[in-house]
Amino acid sequence: MTHVYEDAESFAEVAVQGFCAVHARLVRPVTGGVVRSTKTDEGKVALVIGGGSGHYPAFAGYVGPGFADAAVAGDVFASPATRLIDSVARKAARGGGIILGFGNYAGDVLNFGFAAERLRAQGHDVRVLAITDDVASAGAHEAQRRRGVAGDITVFKIAGAAAEAGLSLDEVERLARRANDRTVSFGVAFGGCTLPGSKEPLFTVPKGKMGVGLGIHGEPGIDEVDIMPASKLAALLVDRLLTEKPDADGSRAAVILNGLGGTKHEELFVLWTFVAEGLRAGGVEAVEPLVGEYVTSLDMEGCSLTLTWLDAELEPHWVAPCDTAALRVGTIMKTEPAPALPPEDSENVTYPEASAESKANAAFLANRLEKLAEALAEAEAELGRIDAQAGDGDHGQGMTRGSRAAATAGVAAAKAGAGVASTLAAASDAWADRAGGTSGAIWGLGLRSAARRLDDGAAVDAKTAAAAVTEALEQVMRLGGAKPGDKTLVDAFAPFAERLAKEVEAGVDLRTAWSRAAEASKEAAEGTAQLAPKLGRARNHTQRSQGHRDAGAVSFALSARTVLEG
Amino acid sequence: MTHVYEDAESFAEVAVQGFCAVHARLVRPVTGGVVRSTKTDEGKVALVIGGGSGHYPAFAGYVGPGFADAAVAGDVFASPATRLIDSVARKAARGGGIILGFGNYAGDVLNFGFAAERLRAQGHDVRVLAITDDVASAGAHEAQRRRGVAGDITVFKIAGAAAEAGLSLDEVERLARRANDRTVSFGVAFGGCTLPGSKEPLFTVPKGKMGVGLGIHGEPGIDEVDIMPASKLAALLVDRLLTEKPDADGSRAAVILNGLGGTKHEELFVLWTFVAEGLRAGGVEAVEPLVGEYVTSLDMEGCSLTLTWLDAELEPHWVAPCDTAALRVGTIMKTEPAPALPPEDSENVTYPEASAESKANAAFLANRLEKLAEALAEAEAELGRIDAQAGDGDHGQGMTRGSRAAATAGVAAAKAGAGVASTLAAASDAWADRAGGTSGAIWGLGLRSAARRLDDGAAVDAKTAAAAVTEALEQVMRLGGAKPGDKTLVDAFAPFAERLAKEVEAGVDLRTAWSRAAEASKEAAEGTAQLAPKLGRARNHTQRSQGHRDAGAVSFALSARTVLEG
Repeated sequence: MTHVYEDAESFAEVAVQGFCAVHARLVRPVTGGVVRSTKTDEGKVALVIGGGSGHYPAFAGYVGPGFADAAVAGDVFASPATRLIDSVARKAARGGGIILGFGNYAGDVLNFGFAAERLRAQGHDVRVLAITDDVASAGAHEAQRRRGVAGDITVFKIAGAAAEAGLSLDEVERLARRANDRTVSFGVAFGGCTLPGSKEPLFTVPKGKMGVGLGIHGEPGIDEVDIMPASKLAALLVDRLLTEKPDADGSRAAVILNGLGGTKHEELFVLWTFVAEGLRAGGVEAVEPLVGEYVTSLDMEGCSLTLTWLDAELEPHWVAPCDTAALRVGTIMKTEPAPALPPEDSENVTYPEASAESKANAAFLANRLEKLAEALAEAEAELGRIDAQAGDGDHGQGMTRGSRAAATAGVAAAKAGAGVASTLAAASDAWADRAGGTSGAIWGLGLRSAARRLDDGAAVDAKTAAAAVTEALEQVMRLGGAKPGDKTLVDAFAPFAERLAKEVEAGVDLRTAWSRAAEASKEAAEGTAQLAPKLGRARNHTQRSQGHRDAGAVSFALSARTVLEG
Repeated sequence: MTHVYEDAESFAEVAVQGFCAVHARLVRPVTGGVVRSTKTDEGKVALVIGGGSGHYPAFAGYVGPGFADAAVAGDVFASPATRLIDSVARKAARGGGIILGFGNYAGDVLNFGFAAERLRAQGHDVRVLAITDDVASAGAHEAQRRRGVAGDITVFKIAGAAAEAGLSLDEVERLARRANDRTVSFGVAFGGCTLPGSKEPLFTVPKGKMGVGLGIHGEPGIDEVDIMPASKLAALLVDRLLTEKPDADGSRAAVILNGLGGTKHEELFVLWTFVAEGLRAGGVEAVEPLVGEYVTSLDMEGCSLTLTWLDAELEPHWVAPCDTAALRVGTIMKTEPAPALPPEDSENVTYPEASAESKANAAFLANRLEKLAEALAEAEAELGRIDAQAGDGDHGQGMTRGSRAAATAGVAAAKAGAGVASTLAAASDAWADRAGGTSGAIWGLGLRSAARRLDDGAAVDAKTAAAAVTEALEQVMRLGGAKPGDKTLVDAFAPFAERLAKEVEAGVDLRTAWSRAAEASKEAAEGTAQLAPKLGRARNHTQRSQGHRDAGAVSFALSARTVLEG
């Protein structure tokens, strides 16, 4: 809903003020709307567009060189008064005549029509252009009764470019009418919008449903159906519009896939993937398609597809340069295409030569990784339970996915003859890539750091193992930013690494040293229940509360034990 | 909420595909994200930005000449995996080193940090740049722990321009860090967003409240307060950021007033009006401010203000040209400023010379308009009641406002010596301007059309009056598009005009003819209850249902009678 306003009555007027302040390079405020702040040649046809507010970028966002000369802004969803249209148009007129462009709604038809009469009485040559693109609002046999929606923009763009090119009023009007006759739109809505000052939406769509052909002010649609996957929605929109594909010059179209405000950019890009397919399949090439918010209705949820069938006369005006707040077409920086990219990295990797000892270590490691994956899969539910007490409960799942991927990659590497360093490196990358989330990144980082201390040419001795573990801890702390006591896996990792280094330093054999270190790690993990939660950057950290063990510490301790056992 | 997707799992990936299809001039898809499709000089520093999806235009919308070289896209609100960052960055690298830029979140810190390690191991010189602008997430004394929000964009823009200018990796990194150190953001949220596939929002804000400092993924804020008027909200944001204004070079700032997705353009423009005032009062000049959606969180309702304190080193990079899907800075068409506008139209009008007879008619007309205004004010509630049965119930109010304005203007014109044509014209304009809505436009149009048949130089005779009424009806039908039987005021107007013309034609005096015509009009207005509703373009028309009188017809008939009486 609309939350930001000073008072509901002044919403549209203050919005225009703010818009002009931001885009002073392009527009100036006048009573009732905006006019270009850039110089315009005498004798040029003036394109004056407008309608109710609440539809930004329509209409003020399209004022500037190559597009409209001025925009008239009524109150939210209300036609501007005749006097305001008259007043704004007079300031935009340069002696070449005036085109008044607006969507075909009763109030706008009256006020723009009446304004045209007034302007003619003042000696201006004025043409009235009501856009009629919404196929849901009337059949093709009475297309002149259709409402205007996002088709406003393709038609106005073509008219604006024709006017900028210096064409006569008759010619600009002829091209604009031709564009309008060849423009169709079809849309759906998932939810209504809320006017400034209102507590309730202007209209609603039942949950899980979508209004097919629902108008941008809530005008009745033609159907109400279940919300459908993007591919089916794309087909619904494309197929309906293709029924009006003209016999001649129907192979190229200006296209707008328009979001109404609450249906966001990435949804529109998803939809575009399927719309583009549908258009190609229908033999239509999309020329410089626009995908985004071009005619909104406040925060209304929904979208529409607009096609303007181009021909040799219309297309140059659609792709001509323009410079407005909402649309900038034309060259800013000279560029040339980049050369073709090399093919994506092959999955077939080769490993450095390895010694027999290192290969033996690699085989052992691969076996241990498999045991680890089994143990973590068994513990998945328990780890999830611990994590859910304070975090989002996906720790067990992440550890299972990561360790399984690591085991698979480690086994493959060892079988391919990799040494222990390369095998651990392959396993670490697989863990990070598949586990996802913070724990996946940390485990991947730790294992890869450890791998850097190993050697494909030599056997792993106790000192090397301890050094690798210490290196892993240091990198996890350095890059992860966690210290002991922060209630992360470091709380179990640090005691493990320290104890292992100490035992090895004292001459204890690796197996015994590891066992004692794992025991220390387990005790520390249990002890995390007593630690204060970390005040951290990520939500899951900040939400961790005292009184629960840290799932990352618990899974680390479990892993340390598992690698030794069996 | 998010409604448009094929399946929730593929949302981010398919969105990137669609984005690249729309913006093929600028970007190409690669595994894990996008790279520029334009040629980049060898030796240039590569700026690779990224993070979770769901934030468009962040991050892919900022890839192109003058800005980023590539963007990595994770799943919605999830850090991209290390492997993907590594893979995308390698494709963007041109031998001049790599800057990895991202917002300071635990997952991104880990994955980008780990990717940097991998890339260094491949021989790249890599710098890691975590953006820390959100003042709500940590105090100024521990600014390095702050989250990254819309400040990402000012810092990346400056870094991207510096890289495009050919600066060395050390220099680009230094400028980027300086920009980050001088960047602060503060935001509020009115409502949470819904992830693809989810039925419920990720988080919520109680109705009527706003979360102050609430993070863009729902991270806890610092306060929850009642929603406030735009001026107070602007002060809240500006005042907090001004507390971190640096001692040196704090007078000019790059500014982003950012909408999170559900808080729309016109709301942001309203807010900007007050933000700009606050910045000016605080001695800060906004340099090329951006007001719009620059870092969203799906359909989250809320906004944030970002300031980057500029100095002589940073400002040229902020205003330098760039060419990306979401931001195009630089000259497209050469323009010069338009000359100053003449002052707005004066309220002091002069009227043409008028004959004594016409002035007498004008005085009579002004008196009749006053009676009409009184009668319509008396009938306001009743007209509203009739209208509310089928429309939006504002007909009585509009008629009262319009007739009152017409009477005032008519009396003023008559007093100023205007003839009857000019007096009626002044009244008609005032009616249209003040009444608002469709009925105001229709009445304004009708009265002005009638005025054109009158003459400031001669008395109004019966034939002239009947011709003026006929002209008014014709224009209302022509421009308004309504025919008898459409359940509009035409249903009462047409019988009136026809009967009047017929009686006058038969030689009946004007007063008697008018009286008979008014009676016919009244009967017709009562009869509209039997008419079928008009299938029209405007919602109020389509909603009119059978069984109720049409308020417009009733008020017309009342007006026709009133002008005669007394």
